[in-house]
Amino acid sequence: MTETDTMTDTKTRIAKVYINLKEGTLDPQGETIQKALRTMGYSKALSVRCGKVYEIEMEDDSPESKKQLEEICQRALANPVIEKFEIKW
Amino acid sequence: MTETDTMTDTKTRIAKVYINLKEGTLDPQGETIQKALRTMGYSKALSVRCGKVYEIEMEDDSPESKKQLEEICQRALANPVIEKFEIKW
Repeated sequence: MTETDTMTDTKTRIAKVYINLKEGTLDPQGETIQKALRTMGYSKALSVRCGKVYEIEMEDDSPESKKQLEEICQRALANPVIEKFEIKW
Repeated sequence: MTETDTMTDTKTRIAKVYINLKEGTLDPQGETIQKALRTMGYSKALSVRCGKVYEIEMEDDSPESKKQLEEICQRALANPVIEKFEIKW
């Protein structure tokens, strides 16, 4: 089976990467949303923090793929100074 | 001791809202990231789709709170034309 077959077949794996601000990091975007919600009358939303999700289709779930995805998160998707990430396969 | 007590001293609840593009909606941001990853040498990432997560601290998990959060998602956080959302309490 060629690499192309693997790509088009259902052998690929979707990994989800969740990126959130670390505890203690200020989140002005979240604060703005919370204020807007309050203005709209949603009194029960006390605070909001924003994060990102990436659904990444990986060629497979081999150790090499897992290593690549870990590096992708550290080097490209997350800012390790203020953000933490979590990968779910 | 109830589950509520163990979370914090208050009775608030953190709900997570996941917002993703619907199937079939183009995601130019995700495509750009995928191309960048390929340029960086990460050949195993075949496609990327971007989404958002909101961690929303709600006053409680009463039916009224759940109704408010559902409305918040529909009216403020997601664009129902191109996005779908999922709430996890």
